[in-house]
Amino acid sequence: MNTFGREFRVTTFGESHGRAVGAVIDGVPAGLELTEEDIRRELNRRMFCHIPALNPRCEPEDFEILSGVKEQRTQGTPIAIVIWNRRADSSYYNELWMKPRPGHADLAYYLKYGKFYDHRGGGRASGRATAAIVAAGAVAKKVLALLGIEIAGHIVELGGVEIGAGYTFEDVKRCWDKPLPVVDGAALERMLERVRQAAEEGDSIGGGVEVWAAGVPPGLGEPHFGKIKGDIAAAAFSIPGVVAMEWGAGRALARMRGSEANDPIVVRDGRPALATNKAGGVLGGITVGEPIYFRVWFKPTPSVRKPQQTVDLSRMEPAVIQFRGRYDVTIVPKALVALEAITAITLADHVLRAGLIRRDRPLRPAESR
Amino acid sequence: MNTFGREFRVTTFGESHGRAVGAVIDGVPAGLELTEEDIRRELNRRMFCHIPALNPRCEPEDFEILSGVKEQRTQGTPIAIVIWNRRADSSYYNELWMKPRPGHADLAYYLKYGKFYDHRGGGRASGRATAAIVAAGAVAKKVLALLGIEIAGHIVELGGVEIGAGYTFEDVKRCWDKPLPVVDGAALERMLERVRQAAEEGDSIGGGVEVWAAGVPPGLGEPHFGKIKGDIAAAAFSIPGVVAMEWGAGRALARMRGSEANDPIVVRDGRPALATNKAGGVLGGITVGEPIYFRVWFKPTPSVRKPQQTVDLSRMEPAVIQFRGRYDVTIVPKALVALEAITAITLADHVLRAGLIRRDRPLRPAESR
Amino acid sequence: MNTFGREFRVTTFGESHGRAVGAVIDGVPAGLELTEEDIRRELNRRMFCHIPALNPRCEPEDFEILSGVKEQRTQGTPIAIVIWNRRADSSYYNELWMKPRPGHADLAYYLKYGKFYDHRGGGRASGRATAAIVAAGAVAKKVLALLGIEIAGHIVELGGVEIGAGYTFEDVKRCWDKPLPVVDGAALERMLERVRQAAEEGDSIGGGVEVWAAGVPPGLGEPHFGKIKGDIAAAAFSIPGVVAMEWGAGRALARMRGSEANDPIVVRDGRPALATNKAGGVLGGITVGEPIYFRVWFKPTPSVRKPQQTVDLSRMEPAVIQFRGRYDVTIVPKALVALEAITAITLADHVLRAGLIRRDRPLRPAESR
Amino acid sequence: MNTFGREFRVTTFGESHGRAVGAVIDGVPAGLELTEEDIRRELNRRMFCHIPALNPRCEPEDFEILSGVKEQRTQGTPIAIVIWNRRADSSYYNELWMKPRPGHADLAYYLKYGKFYDHRGGGRASGRATAAIVAAGAVAKKVLALLGIEIAGHIVELGGVEIGAGYTFEDVKRCWDKPLPVVDGAALERMLERVRQAAEEGDSIGGGVEVWAAGVPPGLGEPHFGKIKGDIAAAAFSIPGVVAMEWGAGRALARMRGSEANDPIVVRDGRPALATNKAGGVLGGITVGEPIYFRVWFKPTPSVRKPQQTVDLSRMEPAVIQFRGRYDVTIVPKALVALEAITAITLADHVLRAGLIRRDRPLRPAESR
Repeated sequence: MNTFGREFRVTTFGESHGRAVGAVIDGVPAGLELTEEDIRRELNRRMFCHIPALNPRCEPEDFEILSGVKEQRTQGTPIAIVIWNRRADSSYYNELWMKPRPGHADLAYYLKYGKFYDHRGGGRASGRATAAIVAAGAVAKKVLALLGIEIAGHIVELGGVEIGAGYTFEDVKRCWDKPLPVVDGAALERMLERVRQAAEEGDSIGGGVEVWAAGVPPGLGEPHFGKIKGDIAAAAFSIPGVVAMEWGAGRALARMRGSEANDPIVVRDGRPALATNKAGGVLGGITVGEPIYFRVWFKPTPSVRKPQQTVDLSRMEPAVIQFRGRYDVTIVPKALVALEAITAITLADHVLRAGLIRRDRPLRPAESR
Repeated sequence: MNTFGREFRVTTFGESHGRAVGAVIDGVPAGLELTEEDIRRELNRRMFCHIPALNPRCEPEDFEILSGVKEQRTQGTPIAIVIWNRRADSSYYNELWMKPRPGHADLAYYLKYGKFYDHRGGGRASGRATAAIVAAGAVAKKVLALLGIEIAGHIVELGGVEIGAGYTFEDVKRCWDKPLPVVDGAALERMLERVRQAAEEGDSIGGGVEVWAAGVPPGLGEPHFGKIKGDIAAAAFSIPGVVAMEWGAGRALARMRGSEANDPIVVRDGRPALATNKAGGVLGGITVGEPIYFRVWFKPTPSVRKPQQTVDLSRMEPAVIQFRGRYDVTIVPKALVALEAITAITLADHVLRAGLIRRDRPLRPAESR
Repeated sequence: MNTFGREFRVTTFGESHGRAVGAVIDGVPAGLELTEEDIRRELNRRMFCHIPALNPRCEPEDFEILSGVKEQRTQGTPIAIVIWNRRADSSYYNELWMKPRPGHADLAYYLKYGKFYDHRGGGRASGRATAAIVAAGAVAKKVLALLGIEIAGHIVELGGVEIGAGYTFEDVKRCWDKPLPVVDGAALERMLERVRQAAEEGDSIGGGVEVWAAGVPPGLGEPHFGKIKGDIAAAAFSIPGVVAMEWGAGRALARMRGSEANDPIVVRDGRPALATNKAGGVLGGITVGEPIYFRVWFKPTPSVRKPQQTVDLSRMEPAVIQFRGRYDVTIVPKALVALEAITAITLADHVLRAGLIRRDRPLRPAESR
Repeated sequence: MNTFGREFRVTTFGESHGRAVGAVIDGVPAGLELTEEDIRRELNRRMFCHIPALNPRCEPEDFEILSGVKEQRTQGTPIAIVIWNRRADSSYYNELWMKPRPGHADLAYYLKYGKFYDHRGGGRASGRATAAIVAAGAVAKKVLALLGIEIAGHIVELGGVEIGAGYTFEDVKRCWDKPLPVVDGAALERMLERVRQAAEEGDSIGGGVEVWAAGVPPGLGEPHFGKIKGDIAAAAFSIPGVVAMEWGAGRALARMRGSEANDPIVVRDGRPALATNKAGGVLGGITVGEPIYFRVWFKPTPSVRKPQQTVDLSRMEPAVIQFRGRYDVTIVPKALVALEAITAITLADHVLRAGLIRRDRPLRPAESR
């Protein structure tokens, strides 16, 4: 199914080389300010046009809001956004027909959908389809802003280069001024070098990102099924290429003693707080008023220029393919933007589930800044 | 919400020191053989009575099947299972009232549910509540067995001790004869030593597990939202204490080049197959006929006997608590059984979503072995 | 599936002659006062012990609240209620095995579930299973009471006898003091006569009911799918025996001209209001602050003492059966209570969907009277 | 919410005078033949251009399939269909701003969405939005055709004129050749006369329709919640203007004795069958292999040319409005097509829920005629 969320609900559609990709965003309260610029800003963040190896097909998106918005305010009705695909050159995909590209979804799609699926550019499984998620995420971020919730992410590892420790949420937001969103300048240089190397060799690299949500109120999340961690995990593993996730201090916690792993509870500003927030803002699946943070790792782009072993499905014989089209040397930066978006969608859903924004009436002026 | 799944749907209820925990399992086709013994076997697997530090309250479960089964066959109607709680001594929880235990869900529950939540034994957030998931998982495993799908897991890390590489699915299933399900005998000894140490010191340890699903047919999973990885991730992060997850070869993939990370596609038994299955049986969120495997890490049990810093919420002042009740030195073995169960539930759901078992009619004899 | 609702979610289980029927009620905010007496009151309302023809098996229900309530307040966690079945004499059902009773669900259950379904007393399809809905409805009514929403229903037709026009919501609530909830005394006498007649003849009768919801705030309901009318219609047609439904002025509207059918809009108490509320409180699927009302018709109880033509499924030959057990001469009074309950559940769901009650925190004292 | 269905899932969007209306159809198996002509045929059926009073704005629809179809076969991915709105003259709606039209959704939308909703042409609540449902229904009908299930409806009452008894499913399908789909020629003449009269007087009329589904296999439908009757009722009451529904023999059953209302069960073609099918093909919410049929009543179009009393919401004072735009004298014929569509969607959903069509693989050639 292509619908995500219970109260803030996003339905996506579209294939990479089809007519369009898009999203229908449902559940948004009436009266929220929403402009095309709000959508465009987020779509642009996933461009990275200044680094050609990351986006060889760099062109601004051509999109339309078809419904749900009147005079730059949401109507309370579903918001349909269509992002038109450009007429791509699909010719070099002809030779890949029935020869599934290793690491891509081709084989799975062939097994499930047979010869009926659109293999060009990865079809429905393409990273392109995440543009629809990013558009929907732009709306979710506006909903969250009503409550002062902010989402921001950054790259913590790329091509094996890791950033150092010690940075703040402000650092994370600010690092989007750099060529890549990396808080650690030295690591950034080495990462860019890895990108260049991989591009030269016709290969690809993976990496990891961290997403933060600040200003999250306590009491979001539902046990047993509907925990914040579980819902964000479902969201994250929906982004193509995700191979691992760590919540809060993550895997390191598994090696600590309990006395060390537990966050002491202290009084801060007259309210209970976690002294160390190794828990990543969530206990028992429910937020406690601390920032949420988690890390997600991506495999390298499956598209590489090196010859790869596959099967010619029409004859069920071994075959070798070599990709000759343009490809992104790493999906990590684009995927980070998609991950931010789907995190925003998940939190907006929980905000509405918990009743923090009423929907029997439009937003009151104070709510709809 | 406490309901999980779309076509195979599990609703759980119950607090640790309340009257009972339980589950209502809905969507099971009519005519499946199901006995109390099927449920008991799985409930017993999470006992580990032979290692007192893992289960100081070791007693067989007292449960009833209230509906949905007639003469050891499912009726096609919801199966309600009640697992009665024993009259526990809750007296030492009195002093913990309004003093949330660090690392537990207490603080989150207090913020969301106020003074109305049952803090005794962790209430709804207790690991005890996963007994209901294990009972439901027993039913899911029977459904999967109709298609030859098998689920088994093992411990891959405990208290910082990791197992070595090189084992088969048969090894995984067989290692349940040992004191703990660990394929590597040498590692097992060191793990048991860590358990003993932590018990002596009144502390606790975490670890990691791996779950395999073998015999999984191709074509399960739905893009964009309803991918096998995403749905199992949501399931896994619903089990208390989960801090990280890796799918297939996991985080190591993020450091490989694409040419190295991609699984070559080969012909095996006349069908396309993955030469190396680093992908963990899933491409683009959809199964390809290879085994599924993933790893999940757990933090140490938050309950420890050492003094811990918290807040007295009634006065909003710092307080120190010291837990004096019985506790499990590690939740990893019990949690592994719950993780197997919820993996089975998720796959049974996808089997039904994809229409592999018809539900307009009862199981045919050949299907209902 | 046996789960109803999105935010206020009820899962039912149980067969008529099995161990128990019951419900798990999920989504209730923490801090709501809820006693066993609240449940018992509603279960008693469906008894009608004073008219033996309506309930030959009259005995008080034996039920337990297994979870979700502590010291007569809801915890915010799922509330499981089990209503134990008495050891019924099922012996006379033996001769009905494989001979589906006309008008009952037997044939449908046989076709869908085969010989695995429990035919005794109607099994899962029995009116008995609506006791679980009534218990859940008791909780829903308490949630609605927080907002001043009241639900009440009455019988408008029984055995062909219709009530006269001209009564108020107060009349509807008050008529529950009578032998049957009928606002019109003269009609009531004739209805009771029809019941007696049908009982003497070993036959059964049908009828109609009307349910009102007063105090409903404007703004509930979601277009396109999630309209108040659609959701209550789904709910109503889930009650066994329902054959027709009319909303507001109902079918009569279809014969009016538009100029006559439209409710003029007027100012009342400084707010816009419907002058005539023929619309039944809903326009475009959304409430406008007027009372909701609708009528539902039930077929006669399928169980009758007269010989009936059926098929012996084991030989696929014609057969005649004659029911010899006790039966309710009409299901209308009991079904009315179930209909009230499921209306309350549906409205409670919409109240939570719209965010009228927050669930990130417990009910505030002012909310939890 | 604007999403309907669980396995066959339709999400609609769009306002009457906005950019477009449309639907995303999800869950369709891969390999189904689907052409633009399939969609166009159904969209044309709701035109009734030959009777100007029924559709004064008669123009062919301008629509596009944006995704999910490749070379006239479904891909298994979501099918997005956009139906472009023509640039309508909205000028005469200016004087209706803040003056809700009686009988329309205006007042409800104002209360829920405030001044942010698009009132032009009824906005989201317009009958125009059902064009999207009709497009989705075209796809559902193709899915049902795989199993030999056919849907057809006809008008049974219009402006107070009722058809006579005695017609077959073939009659119902054939009567679409007439000016209006009415099986009874004499009644049709009188109905057309009522349409003319109402048009002359600037008023509107209501009526009733009946929808049949033939070839429905047994075993569809889920108790308790997910019954065929309940799900179709929810669907039907989602179509604007619905005021009543009767299933099978409907309200007449409520006046029969049980011995009369029960359908005798007989052997037909070697299988159990209902002798009289007063039950409308469903027992206990589950299909038995007999045709489904039900009737739905619609109120008259709220738009009339007569002066109507309303409130000027900006001053909260009485006001009189008079509609001067074009309007449909009755919505019944268009609404019938929408009702057929949503019935098809509901049944397609149940076919997939029950696993009658596998979705782990594409349709086999025999399945995809």
